Amino acid sequence: MTNADSLPDRLGRDLLALREKAPLVHNITNLVVMNVTANALLALGASPIMAHAGEELEDLLGFASALVLNIGTLDSAWIASMEQAAAIAGKKGVPIVLDPVGAGASRLRTATALRLLQQGSPAIVRANPSEILALAGAAGVTKGVDSTHTTAEAETAARTLAQSAHCTVAVSGAVDFITDGQTAWRLSGGSPLMPRITGMGCTASALVGAFAGVSATPLQAAVAGMAVMKVAAEIAAESSEGPGTQQLYFLDALHRLTPEDLIRRMQLAPA
Amino acid sequence: MTNADSLPDRLGRDLLALREKAPLVHNITNLVVMNVTANALLALGASPIMAHAGEELEDLLGFASALVLNIGTLDSAWIASMEQAAAIAGKKGVPIVLDPVGAGASRLRTATALRLLQQGSPAIVRANPSEILALAGAAGVTKGVDSTHTTAEAETAARTLAQSAHCTVAVSGAVDFITDGQTAWRLSGGSPLMPRITGMGCTASALVGAFAGVSATPLQAAVAGMAVMKVAAEIAAESSEGPGTQQLYFLDALHRLTPEDLIRRMQLAPA
Amino acid sequence: MTNADSLPDRLGRDLLALREKAPLVHNITNLVVMNVTANALLALGASPIMAHAGEELEDLLGFASALVLNIGTLDSAWIASMEQAAAIAGKKGVPIVLDPVGAGASRLRTATALRLLQQGSPAIVRANPSEILALAGAAGVTKGVDSTHTTAEAETAARTLAQSAHCTVAVSGAVDFITDGQTAWRLSGGSPLMPRITGMGCTASALVGAFAGVSATPLQAAVAGMAVMKVAAEIAAESSEGPGTQQLYFLDALHRLTPEDLIRRMQLAPA
Repeated sequence: MTNADSLPDRLGRDLLALREKAPLVHNITNLVVMNVTANALLALGASPIMAHAGEELEDLLGFASALVLNIGTLDSAWIASMEQAAAIAGKKGVPIVLDPVGAGASRLRTATALRLLQQGSPAIVRANPSEILALAGAAGVTKGVDSTHTTAEAETAARTLAQSAHCTVAVSGAVDFITDGQTAWRLSGGSPLMPRITGMGCTASALVGAFAGVSATPLQAAVAGMAVMKVAAEIAAESSEGPGTQQLYFLDALHRLTPEDLIRRMQLAPA
Repeated sequence: MTNADSLPDRLGRDLLALREKAPLVHNITNLVVMNVTANALLALGASPIMAHAGEELEDLLGFASALVLNIGTLDSAWIASMEQAAAIAGKKGVPIVLDPVGAGASRLRTATALRLLQQGSPAIVRANPSEILALAGAAGVTKGVDSTHTTAEAETAARTLAQSAHCTVAVSGAVDFITDGQTAWRLSGGSPLMPRITGMGCTASALVGAFAGVSATPLQAAVAGMAVMKVAAEIAAESSEGPGTQQLYFLDALHRLTPEDLIRRMQLAPA
Repeated sequence: MTNADSLPDRLGRDLLALREKAPLVHNITNLVVMNVTANALLALGASPIMAHAGEELEDLLGFASALVLNIGTLDSAWIASMEQAAAIAGKKGVPIVLDPVGAGASRLRTATALRLLQQGSPAIVRANPSEILALAGAAGVTKGVDSTHTTAEAETAARTLAQSAHCTVAVSGAVDFITDGQTAWRLSGGSPLMPRITGMGCTASALVGAFAGVSATPLQAAVAGMAVMKVAAEIAAESSEGPGTQQLYFLDALHRLTPEDLIRRMQLAPA
């Protein structure tokens, strides 16, 4: 890596690597987004698997390039499955992406997310601002699973969380903020339609997981996944007429996205 | 409210109020439709949450404007969750919408729907004609979850059910019939493609739930939700070429729907 | 049936019969594909039901024309449900379609698929090449749920499996291979976008199930379901721009497909 080798260039190469390797991304995720998560991973060029039975986690994680844990429709059985998967992934060196959906909205969600954070040692946490504030202990109670805070309000909490939990934190919003506790980046672009489609944050977590299987560092994987989201959303918005068509054109855009498009369109700045 | 203040005018204002308030709609619904239900609520302007863990129902229902219970893929664990949620919602004064999917098709479904009706005291029941006939004790066994009766056949049963259960009943079909046991309305329009898309009845129940968080009465909420369905389906059908594109254009139409469109296009008549 | 009555002609008539009868297809399937499976069945003209509660299987299977068992997100509760449903279907003479998703990828999946094969006596097994090789005992461990083998590699295993398990086997891939152990057919066409959409194999299994309710033999049902998939995928690909739009145009194409289109476009050859 030389000085001439910019972060956007590296992200472009990661996209090529992802399509060549087709990393297997193991998801234990919520019931609302399973279909769209799998489709986004396939459209980008990764290979998704959704599996939660304790009896097969050891076998399946032997092939996985990343494990994505998402607590969106958690219950005791699924929490046990996520904890077991996190332990196996830790043993096998499979990087974990944690999506703490609704942390702050119920005590169960906050406590579960914190336990997965502490015991699972995720490489990356991808969340909305309210969830990051809840995990950092900096927020009160949140209404539902949609953020009631802006990314700017969560930047300090994100840096603190990244340092204390030794992970990369990606906060998504109109502007994304991504930090490993030292370096930090902001990503602009995307489309205002994205928050009107369910599970786009969950999709971001899954794509970050796909890049975790090919990128040099968790920070680079997180920036790559978030950048791909922003650029594909922006391309989709050029022809969509609402959240229905946006959702489908977004999958088309993921599938057609070239490294050149990604490099040219991404709006990345150091924070 | 004056004489000049017609029901369509009030529904138009409810749509504005919904978008301003973004009511949190808590859904305990079936595994088939969770994604499309969440997307329809977001497209219209509401905020969906899907959550079934007993441990968090108390926390989450503290913020909810409505609770939608849908038995489409019921089992003993989910039935227990729905009963617990109904009890909490009753205590907190959160209005309940009941969607008795497949009542009449199995004894488990009929019995569960009747128990939720009796113990949960829903403000609104939204169902297809066969399900209403089953709940009113007026029908034999039904094949599957699609209606084998017309709305006209279920009108008397709907009135009886509304009176005996002290709730509003919305029967969906080519013509919808909505009654609180006293007043009744019929809604025409929509698109014949809608029964070829899974979960459109479930979506109707969820949108009725969103309006239950802003409308003056359950009857008005039910008419608003059903009218929005009919009008958005009709707009979508103007450019769709089958049930696939219809489903997406429907979400676009929900998102773009103005109070003026709604008022101008709805085909509402007293029954 | 005369010599003039070719297999394509019979498949065209089966499509007409399917739309007239609207067979009820009972699915116990995975959490990722439930929505798209139901939509594909509705778009084609069948009537889907998704239900897994042991307490209602006896009631619901009384009306079913076929039972589709899919182990894509299996766990102990769902496996028990599938085994119970298989036993009831066997007793009632309801034909079973087995989709052994991920057989070969974990010991749990391979063992469950083999048990359902042996105890459930499915009329038809629909799977990808890696899964067929795993069921036939001819393959090692597979990565994930996507096939790592071509159909050609699995043809011998498919014939052996069909003979030993006394069922029809449909192997899907760029070229499909369908055999009852005696006769065998190959189907070409379709679109390279289909493997970039999650659950298209599961959809194929469900459509085969729909035809099992109307076709003269399991072999004919399997060829009909697979042919409809190939032709609808090909029509969709003429206007799609990626896997997002392909998925929706595919549903539109299923809905609009005529017997004449099916007969004219299918690329069927004896193997």
